[in-house]
Amino acid sequence: MRALAIRPGTPGVLLVERPEPAVRRPDEVKVQVLAVGICGTDREEVAGGRARAPDDQAELVIGHEMLGQVVEAGSDVRGLKVGDLAVFTVRRGCGEDLSCLLGRPDMCRTGRYRERGIWGLDGFQAEYVVDRQAYAVRVPPELAEIGVLVEPLSVAEKAIDEAVRVQMARLPEAGAAPAWLAGCRCLVVGLGPIGLLGAVALRLRGAEVCGLDVVDPDTPRAAWLSALGGSYIDGRKVPPDRVPETVGTFDLIFEAAGVAALDFDLLQALAPSGVLVLTGIPGGDRPLEVPGEALARRLVLGNLLVFGSVNAARDHYRLAVDDLGRAVCRWGKEFIGRLITHRYPVEAAPEAFGRHPPEEIKAVVEWGAWP
Amino acid sequence: MRALAIRPGTPGVLLVERPEPAVRRPDEVKVQVLAVGICGTDREEVAGGRARAPDDQAELVIGHEMLGQVVEAGSDVRGLKVGDLAVFTVRRGCGEDLSCLLGRPDMCRTGRYRERGIWGLDGFQAEYVVDRQAYAVRVPPELAEIGVLVEPLSVAEKAIDEAVRVQMARLPEAGAAPAWLAGCRCLVVGLGPIGLLGAVALRLRGAEVCGLDVVDPDTPRAAWLSALGGSYIDGRKVPPDRVPETVGTFDLIFEAAGVAALDFDLLQALAPSGVLVLTGIPGGDRPLEVPGEALARRLVLGNLLVFGSVNAARDHYRLAVDDLGRAVCRWGKEFIGRLITHRYPVEAAPEAFGRHPPEEIKAVVEWGAWP
Repeated sequence: MRALAIRPGTPGVLLVERPEPAVRRPDEVKVQVLAVGICGTDREEVAGGRARAPDDQAELVIGHEMLGQVVEAGSDVRGLKVGDLAVFTVRRGCGEDLSCLLGRPDMCRTGRYRERGIWGLDGFQAEYVVDRQAYAVRVPPELAEIGVLVEPLSVAEKAIDEAVRVQMARLPEAGAAPAWLAGCRCLVVGLGPIGLLGAVALRLRGAEVCGLDVVDPDTPRAAWLSALGGSYIDGRKVPPDRVPETVGTFDLIFEAAGVAALDFDLLQALAPSGVLVLTGIPGGDRPLEVPGEALARRLVLGNLLVFGSVNAARDHYRLAVDDLGRAVCRWGKEFIGRLITHRYPVEAAPEAFGRHPPEEIKAVVEWGAWP
Repeated sequence: MRALAIRPGTPGVLLVERPEPAVRRPDEVKVQVLAVGICGTDREEVAGGRARAPDDQAELVIGHEMLGQVVEAGSDVRGLKVGDLAVFTVRRGCGEDLSCLLGRPDMCRTGRYRERGIWGLDGFQAEYVVDRQAYAVRVPPELAEIGVLVEPLSVAEKAIDEAVRVQMARLPEAGAAPAWLAGCRCLVVGLGPIGLLGAVALRLRGAEVCGLDVVDPDTPRAAWLSALGGSYIDGRKVPPDRVPETVGTFDLIFEAAGVAALDFDLLQALAPSGVLVLTGIPGGDRPLEVPGEALARRLVLGNLLVFGSVNAARDHYRLAVDDLGRAVCRWGKEFIGRLITHRYPVEAAPEAFGRHPPEEIKAVVEWGAWP
């Protein structure tokens, strides 16, 4: 079968031939891949950045945002049958840490996890993929065209779910108002796929959503946020450190930009008792000058909370599947589908990783067609 | 009656005469003050720093860490009777914010709260105090000698309770291990009264405790921590940024030093999924150079969490009373009482605020004697 592979550390992506994987254990599922998204992590890998091939290989099949159709299911597989749509999760636990043993490899503490398409395990940019049913989540057929968005949405779902849990655990109104997000003022920072999908999850929970980026208001990402019912803030006109006096403070800030200087500025835009969740991963090692004493004082006197969130567990994928369904009901499939701005055939994929047109939101490689 | 007052903004403390307060409402309690602690906030007020007199007065009676004995109780008062020991809480809610209305003025979002002895309401450095029973917490007679420690312990209790709630809400092992702190590796930073009392609360919950300060190991604060079963780390020999490689990483870091540069260093000493709680309030507005990109990356990839905690609600005072009782059972009253290193008679109090001998842990002004 065909697959897209890299040599970790070496720039470039290759269309390669690989043996077709087979179901060997009764709890395994074989999936014919339909579509695989391309994200910043993939582009970093293809540029020669952080990636690790499986121990016995020089090459790594890339890709971790996938949607496929079940073509074979082992005898122990329940809840998934041939013909169903499914996605596989990305991270595989270390098998030692309590978090991993409890099904939450996203919280792995040993750092010895592996990730399909990123770290030590082949990914999903291939015609077929086999894995255990424990790592598969069923996607209903009505989400066929947009199911490839489940993985990026799962990253936002984990971050937002954790923010809600943490606030419910510490705010006195928890008992009185279990749906904490309803009516909350939220700011999404960075309107890439994770930011925009985070905005979807927040809007579905009744939050008021503003979105900050540095593009013109009539470009696709800003316009899509506005159509979702969010308010776009042009960061070129409202610098992050002037957000509070211009548009007010926020109960929740969901950061998906990966710019460290911004992270520190955003602390100023948190309302008392507010929460800032960081999902963007800045590169580089530049020192940064920050108003350290004022920030620490603000954190303490305002009971502020900040946390980082990476990856997602199976339950967050299921939340993502649910939310995509609700989003389709509310805004229509055509509208949600507009997040996928570029679809490349496999043959054109190697060049797709090198391009990043400004109007792109999500680019996917098409491996098969949904019948 | 006699009282200790300041003129906010003007250095110095005065022994003044004030009318003795009277019970005027059926839910009020009159308390004869026995002892009132002196903390950094008091010393800042006395030095001319942040403080506000009641609206109709030029002077503010200071003091917010108190222990007294009930001498009169209104007809509606339940659970407190004449002769009981009691402490009053410090903060009074704004009456508008949901947190304040739900009995959690420590989480007030409007900033329009008042604080006895600090902001807009007379404090407890006086012979008698009257307040509503809703702000009073009973202290059992066996804690008479150390009950004045309830307020500083309540500040540690809130921070630690919130850290536990937050971790229980987000860590996968929550379901399996409700007593999250047991066996946790904890670092207490700054061994003043709040740090040392925090160490007590952590040890009582089965945590392994290290304590970081910059004093000799045989000085009272370091020696007291060691006697409690904690391990002292001399920050002059192990700089904060070298803690991880020297003594390892921590699941919980409880900061009570109020040094902003340290707060950023401590992020490096958190284990994955760890929590850093800040209670120290740094003064000043100096810019600080930090490895911003590396810190943000660490927060995200390690699922780290940081929050600030200020003040305490009535429930945290009750936790503090409980924990002081448990601490007396475990380590003896004489040992816990050694935290109170200096007792000043009222007449010597004005000079006590100006002194801060290095061997001091907690200084108190004695207003009366427990019979």
